[in-house]
Amino acid sequence: MSRVGDAFAALEVAQRPEVFLFVRDREVVEAEAASAQGPLAGLLLAVKNNVDVAGTPTTAACPTFADGPADADAQAVARLRAAGATVLGSTNLDQFATGLVGQRSPHGGVRDARRPSYVSGGSSSGSAVSVALGLADVAIGTDTAGSGRVPAMFQGLVGIKPTLGVAAVEGVLPACRSWDAVTIFARDLDTAATAMGAMAGGPGTRAWPSDVRLAAPTRPRVAVPETLVRMEPAWVAAFDDAIARLEAGGADVVKVPFQDFLDAALLLYDGALVAERHGAVGDFVDAHLDDCDPTVGGIVSRAGEVSGSAYVRDTARLEELRARAMGLVEGCDVLVVPTAPGHPTQAALAAAPVAVNSWVGTYTNFANLFDLCGVAVPTGTVVEEDGSVAQTGVTVLGRAFEDAVALDVARRMAVLPPSVALPGAAPALPDPGPWPLLAGAEATRLLVVGAHLPGQPLAHELEALGARWVGPATTAASYRLLALDTTPPKPGLVREAEGGAAIEGGLWELSPAALGRFLAALPAPMSLGSVELADGSCVTGFGVAADAAAAGKDITSFGGWPAYLAAR
Amino acid sequence: MSRVGDAFAALEVAQRPEVFLFVRDREVVEAEAASAQGPLAGLLLAVKNNVDVAGTPTTAACPTFADGPADADAQAVARLRAAGATVLGSTNLDQFATGLVGQRSPHGGVRDARRPSYVSGGSSSGSAVSVALGLADVAIGTDTAGSGRVPAMFQGLVGIKPTLGVAAVEGVLPACRSWDAVTIFARDLDTAATAMGAMAGGPGTRAWPSDVRLAAPTRPRVAVPETLVRMEPAWVAAFDDAIARLEAGGADVVKVPFQDFLDAALLLYDGALVAERHGAVGDFVDAHLDDCDPTVGGIVSRAGEVSGSAYVRDTARLEELRARAMGLVEGCDVLVVPTAPGHPTQAALAAAPVAVNSWVGTYTNFANLFDLCGVAVPTGTVVEEDGSVAQTGVTVLGRAFEDAVALDVARRMAVLPPSVALPGAAPALPDPGPWPLLAGAEATRLLVVGAHLPGQPLAHELEALGARWVGPATTAASYRLLALDTTPPKPGLVREAEGGAAIEGGLWELSPAALGRFLAALPAPMSLGSVELADGSCVTGFGVAADAAAAGKDITSFGGWPAYLAAR
Repeated sequence: MSRVGDAFAALEVAQRPEVFLFVRDREVVEAEAASAQGPLAGLLLAVKNNVDVAGTPTTAACPTFADGPADADAQAVARLRAAGATVLGSTNLDQFATGLVGQRSPHGGVRDARRPSYVSGGSSSGSAVSVALGLADVAIGTDTAGSGRVPAMFQGLVGIKPTLGVAAVEGVLPACRSWDAVTIFARDLDTAATAMGAMAGGPGTRAWPSDVRLAAPTRPRVAVPETLVRMEPAWVAAFDDAIARLEAGGADVVKVPFQDFLDAALLLYDGALVAERHGAVGDFVDAHLDDCDPTVGGIVSRAGEVSGSAYVRDTARLEELRARAMGLVEGCDVLVVPTAPGHPTQAALAAAPVAVNSWVGTYTNFANLFDLCGVAVPTGTVVEEDGSVAQTGVTVLGRAFEDAVALDVARRMAVLPPSVALPGAAPALPDPGPWPLLAGAEATRLLVVGAHLPGQPLAHELEALGARWVGPATTAASYRLLALDTTPPKPGLVREAEGGAAIEGGLWELSPAALGRFLAALPAPMSLGSVELADGSCVTGFGVAADAAAAGKDITSFGGWPAYLAAR
Repeated sequence: MSRVGDAFAALEVAQRPEVFLFVRDREVVEAEAASAQGPLAGLLLAVKNNVDVAGTPTTAACPTFADGPADADAQAVARLRAAGATVLGSTNLDQFATGLVGQRSPHGGVRDARRPSYVSGGSSSGSAVSVALGLADVAIGTDTAGSGRVPAMFQGLVGIKPTLGVAAVEGVLPACRSWDAVTIFARDLDTAATAMGAMAGGPGTRAWPSDVRLAAPTRPRVAVPETLVRMEPAWVAAFDDAIARLEAGGADVVKVPFQDFLDAALLLYDGALVAERHGAVGDFVDAHLDDCDPTVGGIVSRAGEVSGSAYVRDTARLEELRARAMGLVEGCDVLVVPTAPGHPTQAALAAAPVAVNSWVGTYTNFANLFDLCGVAVPTGTVVEEDGSVAQTGVTVLGRAFEDAVALDVARRMAVLPPSVALPGAAPALPDPGPWPLLAGAEATRLLVVGAHLPGQPLAHELEALGARWVGPATTAASYRLLALDTTPPKPGLVREAEGGAAIEGGLWELSPAALGRFLAALPAPMSLGSVELADGSCVTGFGVAADAAAAGKDITSFGGWPAYLAAR
């Protein structure tokens, strides 16, 4: 059966009417899927219903909020479609994206994919569960306080929350305009990264700086909270296990005080920053309080009482906290936290709807306030007191624009759970490389043939510049390789007017600023210029000054530096 | 007499008791000046009294606001002192930096340096007049809506308003925290740039990106408002003259619609953004309204009535305006505007204190809201109806971090007026180069010997990357120069193991990202690596691949490429 046919069958089998608020006509979905082209062709997309899909009302789970169907796709949706994804439908959410639990909806709370008496997590509840169950293959979420991460953990998914602004919010109903990110859920990292690379970038998005890091170093420095608060011992142990595995695989773990991070949450929940929610939908909520979820309506309407002066003061306080918190993680590549402190049942939530919601966001809500990017990945399970098995996970947080660094560390930590996807779900896509490059970040490739190859003594220089190892590469068959008299020993690559051989080397990928810094620090006699590869293309690569080359020893016959070193 | 002695004499002669709120003890000033070292040694500094100076109360022109003297210098003050400036005293201002006229102070309005019945401009009124009269040589101002630019024009000074955040606001009383910049006044551009280079940068400041442009292109593209509004014909003519001179000197002028820029002002004055002023000093003003200037007290206390929700919505509206306005100037290097539409008398201001103040800010108030940097320079004079002569000027506005580009264009436009400084004022300092480099921006130097020399066919490549021409330079006497078979014709520089000659070339300065982009686009057979200069230092410079060098013609005896070309 086709992917679309499987999906419509799965919608029947799943018996989760609360997941999709709108499913598009099967004929339309089939026609679109049949003509889809691009890296996401064959994948079905679920879209959180606070994001415009042409022809579907954007209700944000408040039925009277939408005047009618949206005229056009949000930019994020349009870009995913252009990359081959086919929109299956629009999903349930915590109303106005106000919540982390997935239960604040007049269409019913979205139940956990594996354990229906537990909450799904939210606010991107339907998006996450649709992917976990294999109804869709990728889904768009939005994330202000954790809505793209918490449901990823609860549903055993990967959730990529990019740096604020790099994925367009055009066509997305704001929750807190200053801190809203558009996110991706998928069942594996490579599919999520491919989709994020397609979705991010484009008109109106935040420009990537010219010194973006494209990879974590071989041995990353990882900050973790000094003390895990508000967590049961089994959940603490699961986190500690995940960190211990990362450390054993080669990482330096640094424990940092966490109070400044936790304090930021108080500003979001108990302070004046909540005025953003009233700025977004307050006029509607004030006029239609009876149409709103009682918890959500209360939060938004009370947010209208905040003064501008208090908002300004809390923003200043936030900036102070941010500066201090960023100081604590200085020198670290990433900060790894539990995605959520635990996983509540629907009953527990009902008993304390606001307190449990705040608890769930303990480790997520500061991220956007501090302008961090994050990747939430599953890392294992916890057996609950009731005997059921919860999914646990961590979020790898990076500085703004260090999405590729966070992704790299997340890849090392991810332990995907057994799938609960119904038949027909699309398989994982291949690794697309660092998705910021797909989304407009600039980089160039550098051919190295000697001391900067991985494992050689100067590879660390490129790693420190955020360069990413692409893989082996061979020059055109028109070069000589010389052993030079340098410390450390280096080869020199010299182009021959006639004759010459193909030399084995490898490619790094790095930002323009990293390349410039590398060149500015390059000592004589090495030089950089255009080198021809075996396929006829040209990349920047190493050369050597003529005087040093003349004094070098011809080692061309070895075919490459490592082979020469091995034979010495 | 010493600079300090001259200054204290000038304070007597000037008879402007309203300029300084605090003058430091002469003995202390003399002792500090005697031991001062650095590029600003010998210069006296005036500090707007909303900026902390150790030992002086920071009153912001509200005497009861300060509890006592400040414990420490603001970071901006400390950095200027470390560079050799000596603080003479702290200056009058529009109370709480709320105004553009310099008359909203219980210590009396500050009178124009040349025409005492006219306003000085504000809010940095005392700082500007102290420099114009030569009581001080440089002064610190602050600028939210134009307070570092309007008084510069009225007083015939240079005013540098840097990109938001690159000069520390630590120790500065906020006016509107999101849009406050610390500024410099001086009587000439080079002194202003030297001081700004010393003051900007340091802990807590906004990091310079790695692709900062260091100069305007030889022929910059300059946006100007399509229509000048709210200006008398003589003032319009003076602006048109300044632009015509710039154009005649080699610039492309592009007229752009200006309504989006003007609309931003309405948000600042009539919208919810004014909540920032209450966030800054509202608690004090509400409790001490009788201690406040009536106009200022009214503005600040009414700002307390703004809701957070309205503030959030106006911030969103501002972002829309900004995006649209920036689209209008896309492809332009700078935007040049009149600094102020005219220069009011004190009487005209008294007749309409709020309206005249708003009018004065017509061309300044959008700049910080849109995250632009600016340099205000004098460009000429206008004869008023009363026969008196007003100073006119323009502000050259650049995108965030393009301070060096704005400075470059401002340098071409500046026409300094006859000085009214009293005897003893310090002479102009030498050109310090682009001040962002002094303030932490990163750049590297590149030696060129051929087609990238100024006037040669490929110099435009470096100009387009924001590179700055530093000047001629010569290699160590150990190179050969070869004429290569390339299009366009290029020389190749080759290091000799023994012998060789000194080759004439020149240095550009460019950002790391620019260098990386230049390298990535560099065609074979050219290469870049370390080149030794005549003084023994090494810089990045051009080399050439051995195969092309072997085919080249030795032209070393010409000593350089231009000499070879001239002799052909």
